[in-house]
Amino acid sequence: MESKVKEIHGWIAKNKGKAVKLLQRLVQEKSVQGNESSAQAVVIEACREMGLEIDIWEPDGKELKEHENFVSTREYFSDSPNVVAVWKGSGGGRSIILNGHIDVVPEGDRNQWDCDPYEGKVENGKVYGRGTTDMKGGNVSMLLAVEALQAAGIKLKGDVIFQSVIEEESGGAGSLAAILRGYKADAALIPEPTNLKIFPKQQGSMWFRIKVKGKSAHGGTRYEGVSAIEKSMLVVEKIRKLEKVRNERVKDPLYEKIPIPLPINIGKIAGGSWPSSVPDELTLEGRIGVGPEESMFDVQQEMEAFLQTLQAEDKWFADHPVELEWYGARWVPGSVDGKHPFVELIKKNYQGVTKKEAILEASPWGTDGGLFTQVAKIPTVVFGPGTTEVAHYPNEYISIENMLSVAEIIALTLVDWCEIAQ
Amino acid sequence: MESKVKEIHGWIAKNKGKAVKLLQRLVQEKSVQGNESSAQAVVIEACREMGLEIDIWEPDGKELKEHENFVSTREYFSDSPNVVAVWKGSGGGRSIILNGHIDVVPEGDRNQWDCDPYEGKVENGKVYGRGTTDMKGGNVSMLLAVEALQAAGIKLKGDVIFQSVIEEESGGAGSLAAILRGYKADAALIPEPTNLKIFPKQQGSMWFRIKVKGKSAHGGTRYEGVSAIEKSMLVVEKIRKLEKVRNERVKDPLYEKIPIPLPINIGKIAGGSWPSSVPDELTLEGRIGVGPEESMFDVQQEMEAFLQTLQAEDKWFADHPVELEWYGARWVPGSVDGKHPFVELIKKNYQGVTKKEAILEASPWGTDGGLFTQVAKIPTVVFGPGTTEVAHYPNEYISIENMLSVAEIIALTLVDWCEIAQ
Repeated sequence: MESKVKEIHGWIAKNKGKAVKLLQRLVQEKSVQGNESSAQAVVIEACREMGLEIDIWEPDGKELKEHENFVSTREYFSDSPNVVAVWKGSGGGRSIILNGHIDVVPEGDRNQWDCDPYEGKVENGKVYGRGTTDMKGGNVSMLLAVEALQAAGIKLKGDVIFQSVIEEESGGAGSLAAILRGYKADAALIPEPTNLKIFPKQQGSMWFRIKVKGKSAHGGTRYEGVSAIEKSMLVVEKIRKLEKVRNERVKDPLYEKIPIPLPINIGKIAGGSWPSSVPDELTLEGRIGVGPEESMFDVQQEMEAFLQTLQAEDKWFADHPVELEWYGARWVPGSVDGKHPFVELIKKNYQGVTKKEAILEASPWGTDGGLFTQVAKIPTVVFGPGTTEVAHYPNEYISIENMLSVAEIIALTLVDWCEIAQ
Repeated sequence: MESKVKEIHGWIAKNKGKAVKLLQRLVQEKSVQGNESSAQAVVIEACREMGLEIDIWEPDGKELKEHENFVSTREYFSDSPNVVAVWKGSGGGRSIILNGHIDVVPEGDRNQWDCDPYEGKVENGKVYGRGTTDMKGGNVSMLLAVEALQAAGIKLKGDVIFQSVIEEESGGAGSLAAILRGYKADAALIPEPTNLKIFPKQQGSMWFRIKVKGKSAHGGTRYEGVSAIEKSMLVVEKIRKLEKVRNERVKDPLYEKIPIPLPINIGKIAGGSWPSSVPDELTLEGRIGVGPEESMFDVQQEMEAFLQTLQAEDKWFADHPVELEWYGARWVPGSVDGKHPFVELIKKNYQGVTKKEAILEASPWGTDGGLFTQVAKIPTVVFGPGTTEVAHYPNEYISIENMLSVAEIIALTLVDWCEIAQ
């Protein structure tokens, strides 16, 4: 085995140029929501060259809509195919799903980019562009891992099920569709941008909207009205308290180094319509983090109850309670025991390849991993080469070295998990 | 004179139907900004019937724009005529301007009206409709006063200059145009809706905009960002303190019964763009009241300096100071001594007609009176029949009795102020 390990390492190092080229080709296809097919074509070609069994289909919006975990801004997925490519094992070994999303968020304000976001510029050991870090670089790591094993003449016992899915950025309908299509495995790995940290647990999240009422009046006699802006400050304070209470309960050592394990973010505020009038309505919109072991329903109940306490504290709220609504996106949380053999293997291989101590944490955001853990009941770990801080930002990049290291770690983990066929 | 007083009273009482009819005709012409000409035609007809000298002109936007007190949402006033109608005196007496605006604010949400806002429904002694209270009812009182004197065979020494102006609701360009056209007098009366209170002083006001900065981050790691929403709460608190400081200085007995003489209203808030992101910018818009004797410039300086103290109190503001901008509408404050003979006369006649104690107050909002006081240097009193609380609201109405009482008070004040010619 020692020689195989060396061979894998050597092959990956030698094929750095090929890996970069593949990433560039993926970045050059601007796979924002609804426009994923040309990037998927690049993936399909790579899988075909490796001789994998390829399954391409457009998710069925009608079927998805009926699932309680379906979240998307659209209901139709024509021309937005999912791709699954299976490297069949010889049998008897543990199977694995390698999942990555092909969709990217829009590039935003072009003026904030120092380069073309869809060119794939290479500079100082990095590839720049939208989706390099989140998460086409991670996808390249996975494909490279499989190819490295094949190049080393390795054949595995367990199946390797590579998935290139749509819709992760919009709530996970692509992975949900893959689950509903029947793909199962003994473990799943998702190389989202974790800065090479290993996330056995992932935070879920939900969007909320709070409506605060006021009473209109002329600004010159504002004392005749009730300002929804001033009342909203009490609501913001209450939310801060809820966040505090929720985080005091978090004892998980995986959250040890995280200042606020389960943040409640208020992302948007809008109220009033005229400078000279007392504002009589205001809306807060935000995101509440859901702990890896929490139920989304319980979190909703807790927030609802907490906001209701405003009614006992403030006469205005007693007569005009705030309205809480759950809308838009949500991400299911996920949790695997930190001592799970799959986690241990990734940790071992991370240390072997990088010669560094592995860092285990709980992710501060949701991924499709929640769906795999909770809906498909597959132990899922998120671990990838991308740089968390540049995801969704201008001048997104990925370190080529990290991309290759993760390819090597995945290759070795496949060998350990799925076992070499004799 | 005793008999003339009775005659005036009797004529006005007898012509209640005529007064209501005139008000209805004015209300039926929907004189929102840019659409004032047909309502002005009704005014012109009434003035022509009384034999007044009529001056009709479209204000010159070019000339107005150069004036420091020009405020409007438009620069062209074609088809939006001002009307001035003069009842020439025989000479030797004090002159008076009777000023009212013909423009009305839009009716808003029709579903909140129990009647057609432009029908002029009469019910329970009230006329309903947009502009009844603010301030076509006051305009009718003025016209009725002049007609009552004429009917009593009275001829005055001083000139009575009746003005029906555009643009009061948008900052006063109509009255400014009348001032710039050269109309002057020894006193001015504006029957805005004061609930029959006498306002020798009027609050001015200005709109402000405050920009608060934050630092963006993903909501799941919100501790890496700085929330513009949370920072804005400190700004709101600071504004509340500024309001407190400013109002502690107000010793004027005219403000005795007013909970907050010079309010600062925050009317609008908007910040952030995505529930899952830490908001990095936020805008507050509001209105600051300017005391009758304050300079607008000084108030701007005070607010600017007060907001700058945030920089000493909060590291974030030291590096990212809030931006204060003065934009949009502003109304010049106005002040006449409460013991001014013109004020005394209105007070006396109010008590004579209504048999009630007159209430002198400082208005909590601006009117064109500020322009007359500060720009034209004419002692100006605001006193009118409308109901303050329904101005700009659905189901606006005016009490017919109040409209007639004010007509009588104005008639008697004209007699006292301008004197009867022998």
